[in-house]
Amino acid sequence: MDHAVVMAGGSGKRFWPESRMHRSKQFLDLTGGGPMIVETVRRLLPLVPRKNVWVVAGEKDAPHLSARALGVPPGNIVLEPEGRNTAPAVALAAALIEARDKDAVIAATPADHAVADAASFRAVLGKGFRLARRTGRFVTLGIAPAHPATGYGYIERGDPYREGRDGAYLVRRFTEKPDLKTARRFLRTRRFYWNSGVFVVRAGTYRNRVARFLPAVHRELERALRDAGKRGFRDGLRRAYARMPSVSVDYGILEKEDGILVIPSDFGWNDIGTWRSLHEFLGGAGENVTAGKAILEDTRGALVRSDRGVVAVIGMEDVVVIRNGDAVLVCPRHRSEEVKGIVDEVERRFPDLA
Amino acid sequence: MDHAVVMAGGSGKRFWPESRMHRSKQFLDLTGGGPMIVETVRRLLPLVPRKNVWVVAGEKDAPHLSARALGVPPGNIVLEPEGRNTAPAVALAAALIEARDKDAVIAATPADHAVADAASFRAVLGKGFRLARRTGRFVTLGIAPAHPATGYGYIERGDPYREGRDGAYLVRRFTEKPDLKTARRFLRTRRFYWNSGVFVVRAGTYRNRVARFLPAVHRELERALRDAGKRGFRDGLRRAYARMPSVSVDYGILEKEDGILVIPSDFGWNDIGTWRSLHEFLGGAGENVTAGKAILEDTRGALVRSDRGVVAVIGMEDVVVIRNGDAVLVCPRHRSEEVKGIVDEVERRFPDLA
Repeated sequence: MDHAVVMAGGSGKRFWPESRMHRSKQFLDLTGGGPMIVETVRRLLPLVPRKNVWVVAGEKDAPHLSARALGVPPGNIVLEPEGRNTAPAVALAAALIEARDKDAVIAATPADHAVADAASFRAVLGKGFRLARRTGRFVTLGIAPAHPATGYGYIERGDPYREGRDGAYLVRRFTEKPDLKTARRFLRTRRFYWNSGVFVVRAGTYRNRVARFLPAVHRELERALRDAGKRGFRDGLRRAYARMPSVSVDYGILEKEDGILVIPSDFGWNDIGTWRSLHEFLGGAGENVTAGKAILEDTRGALVRSDRGVVAVIGMEDVVVIRNGDAVLVCPRHRSEEVKGIVDEVERRFPDLA
Repeated sequence: MDHAVVMAGGSGKRFWPESRMHRSKQFLDLTGGGPMIVETVRRLLPLVPRKNVWVVAGEKDAPHLSARALGVPPGNIVLEPEGRNTAPAVALAAALIEARDKDAVIAATPADHAVADAASFRAVLGKGFRLARRTGRFVTLGIAPAHPATGYGYIERGDPYREGRDGAYLVRRFTEKPDLKTARRFLRTRRFYWNSGVFVVRAGTYRNRVARFLPAVHRELERALRDAGKRGFRDGLRRAYARMPSVSVDYGILEKEDGILVIPSDFGWNDIGTWRSLHEFLGGAGENVTAGKAILEDTRGALVRSDRGVVAVIGMEDVVVIRNGDAVLVCPRHRSEEVKGIVDEVERRFPDLA
């Protein structure tokens, strides 16, 4: 069967003041369609049936994880004792899935990305499931780049797979976030895709590669999972996580694996990494994007959000104004990346407001 | 005796969101020294004794007018049924003062202006009292202009009075707010002063000029005041005010009066007409001026005020950010004047937040 693993362990600071120490990005309603994690689950249905949608998140986020709100069975919510990045998260979910369905194919997806065209996303993902099941390979979704973004990792394609009969390419390499010059070169070659972070693979294959490339993660998880369903399992898992390295799927597995496939896709994907990218996702360059009560006078290209009361903006261009709870953020759109630094400062000076 | 009349009937909209429909500028603590009206009373002491300080304000502001907080006798708080601008306000106060002290000289002052050097202000005002008492003339305080402001009215001086023996000049004319070109010309001639709005005159003279230049105001007030201290006085006053024109002292009296004197002064006066002028009063051009919890990163020339929580500003120049209650304002400093328009929009769209 086809299963999905929603990776919800993130804890970004770039959406302060909406994201806080105790409310990460995936639990925010940024695009107006509900919390991003709920959108992410919804986007998978009905391609993946509800009973096969799994959510992996940190224990600390348990209060935000309502199975009812997410629309998945309570047993499909997998809580990690602490964050160890994506490779262990998917390994834990994959092990639980495989225990129930030994032929499972899993599609892993970040919980906090946006997709404009969900139907197109499901069509591509369906292709990914079929390809991963048939070939036993890792299948990634690459996004046709719209501009030379420096905030994304890229996937370089190699030769067409089976002479293009599946609409997929062999992956030549994964790259880190490039500088602007490099990103421009990537676009010119027409051989690079944005790495959407979504991949599909047989659960057994994933387990096998964790054993090969990340033996410490494999060993700790296997040991802890012997007690699955028994008393003492959570304690064992806690000990296992304490000993595990923190490592991403990209770095720990995909960059070492051979024969990975990439399906070029175009479903209006955006990782919504900063307030700037939220603006980009929701509006054009000079457009104002607002949520909540806002009065904008002679203002262009603004992102204005308010959880209560009113925000009035006069005569500003490309500004971000976010009012949430006790905090207000004002910055130029192109400096949204620096919000992270502000959060550190807030934590230091006004810890109750971080 | 010397008396002071603090004119507190204003209802400006340019300090939204701190000023609201039910809290005008004179009741805000803008400079950090307490509500402006309290600062205004304090600035007069001990030149004018507390028992001779009178406050004229609108009935609607009664909840904000604590005689104890103001430090004046409760009987010195004069409530107008509705606003009719400054000429009737001073006429009402002057009549009550004259009834108690027929030789009174009154200094009328706006309740919502700032003065950096209170001692120097009292020295000049003392001179004004002496001059007004001796000559029977209106005496105004003119401010040596620091720059070609377009937000102030100006006083043009004529010849030195008594060959300068009193440090005063005869007033040649009062002018409305000039455009920038005119203001520059004013400065070059060195014959113009900013009109501080403060003037000194015998109470009897003031009454006499109201009778001459504003007979309707005079007639209505005289009739109402016949019942002063009796039952039905407030109702009579309400009827009188309903029939009175709305007219300022400048327009209704000073511009028509001959032989007015002006004392050139320099006590760090600022009418604090907009957020911009508050910034100008409290800081230099490139300085950040903050009140409340604020984090400013790579930001210059900002005015940031927050009544609670924290305001974070990254990478902005010359911006005004005000957070108060349920509202947030963001605008360039030089566009503070337009806040008035925003208030109208808030009143229209979100009346509970105006």
